[in-house]
Amino acid sequence: MTGILAEKTATSPVGGGSVTGEAPSGGSGTSAEHEARAALMRAADVGDAIMGRLVTQYGAPGAVEVIRARTLPPDFIAQEAQQERPPNLTARLNTWYARLAAANPAADLEAGERSGARLIIPGSPEWPTQLDQLGPSRPLGLWLHGTADLRFSCLKSVAVVGARAATAYGAHIAAEFGVGLSESGWTVVSGGAFGVDGAAHRGALAADSPTVVVLACGVDVCYPSGHDTLFTAARNQGVVISECPPGVHPTRARFLIRNRLIAALSRGTVVVEAALRSGALNTAAHALTLNRHLGAVPGPVTSGMSAGCHRLLRERKAVCITSPEEMIDLVGVIGDDLAAHSRAPAVPRDKLNETTRRVLDAIPSRGGAGPASIAVAAGVGLDTALSALGGLAAAGYIERTTNGWRLRKQTTTYPKVPDSAALEPPPTPEPTDPTQDPLFADDDCPSPDDLTEHG
Amino acid sequence: MTGILAEKTATSPVGGGSVTGEAPSGGSGTSAEHEARAALMRAADVGDAIMGRLVTQYGAPGAVEVIRARTLPPDFIAQEAQQERPPNLTARLNTWYARLAAANPAADLEAGERSGARLIIPGSPEWPTQLDQLGPSRPLGLWLHGTADLRFSCLKSVAVVGARAATAYGAHIAAEFGVGLSESGWTVVSGGAFGVDGAAHRGALAADSPTVVVLACGVDVCYPSGHDTLFTAARNQGVVISECPPGVHPTRARFLIRNRLIAALSRGTVVVEAALRSGALNTAAHALTLNRHLGAVPGPVTSGMSAGCHRLLRERKAVCITSPEEMIDLVGVIGDDLAAHSRAPAVPRDKLNETTRRVLDAIPSRGGAGPASIAVAAGVGLDTALSALGGLAAAGYIERTTNGWRLRKQTTTYPKVPDSAALEPPPTPEPTDPTQDPLFADDDCPSPDDLTEHG
Repeated sequence: MTGILAEKTATSPVGGGSVTGEAPSGGSGTSAEHEARAALMRAADVGDAIMGRLVTQYGAPGAVEVIRARTLPPDFIAQEAQQERPPNLTARLNTWYARLAAANPAADLEAGERSGARLIIPGSPEWPTQLDQLGPSRPLGLWLHGTADLRFSCLKSVAVVGARAATAYGAHIAAEFGVGLSESGWTVVSGGAFGVDGAAHRGALAADSPTVVVLACGVDVCYPSGHDTLFTAARNQGVVISECPPGVHPTRARFLIRNRLIAALSRGTVVVEAALRSGALNTAAHALTLNRHLGAVPGPVTSGMSAGCHRLLRERKAVCITSPEEMIDLVGVIGDDLAAHSRAPAVPRDKLNETTRRVLDAIPSRGGAGPASIAVAAGVGLDTALSALGGLAAAGYIERTTNGWRLRKQTTTYPKVPDSAALEPPPTPEPTDPTQDPLFADDDCPSPDDLTEHG
Repeated sequence: MTGILAEKTATSPVGGGSVTGEAPSGGSGTSAEHEARAALMRAADVGDAIMGRLVTQYGAPGAVEVIRARTLPPDFIAQEAQQERPPNLTARLNTWYARLAAANPAADLEAGERSGARLIIPGSPEWPTQLDQLGPSRPLGLWLHGTADLRFSCLKSVAVVGARAATAYGAHIAAEFGVGLSESGWTVVSGGAFGVDGAAHRGALAADSPTVVVLACGVDVCYPSGHDTLFTAARNQGVVISECPPGVHPTRARFLIRNRLIAALSRGTVVVEAALRSGALNTAAHALTLNRHLGAVPGPVTSGMSAGCHRLLRERKAVCITSPEEMIDLVGVIGDDLAAHSRAPAVPRDKLNETTRRVLDAIPSRGGAGPASIAVAAGVGLDTALSALGGLAAAGYIERTTNGWRLRKQTTTYPKVPDSAALEPPPTPEPTDPTQDPLFADDDCPSPDDLTEHG
């Protein structure tokens, strides 16, 4: 009965409401199944693989009976004994039994419904099937609170994770990624924590797109409490989810297990900022284990908050990501979401052909030189030199003096900059005005696309 | 005769002086050989592979004769015709001929000697044999000006390169690398330009170690002139080198060809800062072509001056380098120069065993709980729970109240931080005081060394 209520909330506007319009009966979940799983979510720790296998073989109601009877089927015991590290089944069973005795699934389902949440289970229309990749540690069920449809929202989703103690730089980048990914139609999944998580969610909300907040506590518990308004906004525009029963508070263990959901829900994870010890690196490890894409945003090497990202890059576990487009390029479908290849800007000199460049290089900056000596210096014929000189003069690169040809002042005077100037970039030249093209600027080389031309 | 003078300078204190104590006659170079190569250095462009092959087959004096006679040996012509892109040998020969006619090698050698420089050629005791890897584009000779021995200095050397228009960040990092590499006994090789190059050289000089400045102009030409004092210091403590004859001014082409020397002299190259169009990326390409190690220092993704580095990382052409130690780790001899693996700091909780952690997680932050319920929540036996509780209380993690056990206030109050706090890191706890160990700090996860433990 309460199970039915739980399903009802999936469409009742009262209950935060699902906008999918899918009939509650659309899922394979039954009221008995819901109530049984709600009970098991109390009995087992989140991500308990043994419980997962028990439910897979005997169904949720069956598992409840087994635990109530306090005796595991012999074949199950035999099978668990085959595990790499055979668990202490008796201890585990006693724990389940004691917790199940104290559990009140009906009350949980009612509490959840009261708070406006809905319980979905494997087979429910809203269930994200990519979670099945978690195998026996797949959640027994998920509490959802929000207007967005979880399954649909996660079809194209990216996890943006990082340090709670984010720097201004990290928070800025996280928000940029939240906006950028959303505007390209990608859902931002994160943990709702302070710092990077919060900034990423805010960016997504600012871009009027749904965002998925994965909590390590009950969806009716607001942790951190400072994110009260953020979670409200996320519920109105996206969805807040958790595999914990209502009222459950977060623990270290739950944070770590929760991270596997963030990684499993998304096509890829990008770490924006992470110290060498950071929960974000744990999420990154889950993404790698699940063979999802992993990206890391570099930062100043002087910032400890980027040390974790740099470590992932250094160990080649993550791809270097500098923009939302590059992340989409990583997780997107080839030919569909490819980002534009960052190209170096073109400068007027690029238009000069090889010979003309050689002539230009052969022209002195001081004094002057005649066509003949220029031709020798450039290693070209006299006719070639003469025609090139004409073109270069017309383009404003060189000028004729009484002593012969020389580079035009603007382009020739070597920068007599004080060394302190090395600390800030010099005024960049107008690329459209060839006469301003600096002779030895940093773009003093072929575009990186011909990087190896001098190899 | 002038050739002899040139060799003399290799040991004469007048001539800037070599401190190697190697006898001038130690090299296979003869006065004739020196004078011939000085002449060819005028006739051919730097890095001219055809000239390289000509000299390899007929020797420098032989090549001079061939050019003076203005007729290439038939077999050489035939062989060049086999090249992928057969060159216009006639045009090339005419260029060489015209330049050779205008060249005055004796004057060059005298000018070099006057400026205090010395000319070394393949076979000279000071010749860095790693340059032979450049094949036919190997320099015909090198002008050196400084007290350091080039060959010895480059045995353990790293090229530190980057943008002229370096940011304060880039200049800071470059200087750090200059100091760090030098203090570990590694010679810093760079191009003596403004920005990253200059900062790296200064760092090395500050660490009282030799540094190698590779110029794209004659060693007696000061470009950039703003680095006059820097080059003087480099000559007194290290060595300034160039493959250009005395008095030659830099050109774009010479900068690009020069970069291959920087890469070829060093065991590895690290790019500190580079825009998408930067000469540093050209040096990086040379390093890759020569199968030398390549590193790139990440920076803020908001800085265009790091875009080139991030591109190298993204394309996995370069290794992510965040400290001089990591660069030494890359180029060093395994077991000899290995850098310490950056490890996450340990926190008191690490010392708690699995069971004790589970019990700690099961203890409520508000109110209190009795040992029995804690045991159930933690999923351990009552005896185990009781002993763990004793230990945790002794360690200051928990306290006993009239309602039972609860976490000690310092460790329990959830951070009610305003969201703005996400912008700056919170005060870091005293790691030695367990009672200050924050419950959900960023180190709220296993050390990255067990990253995959939850996979």
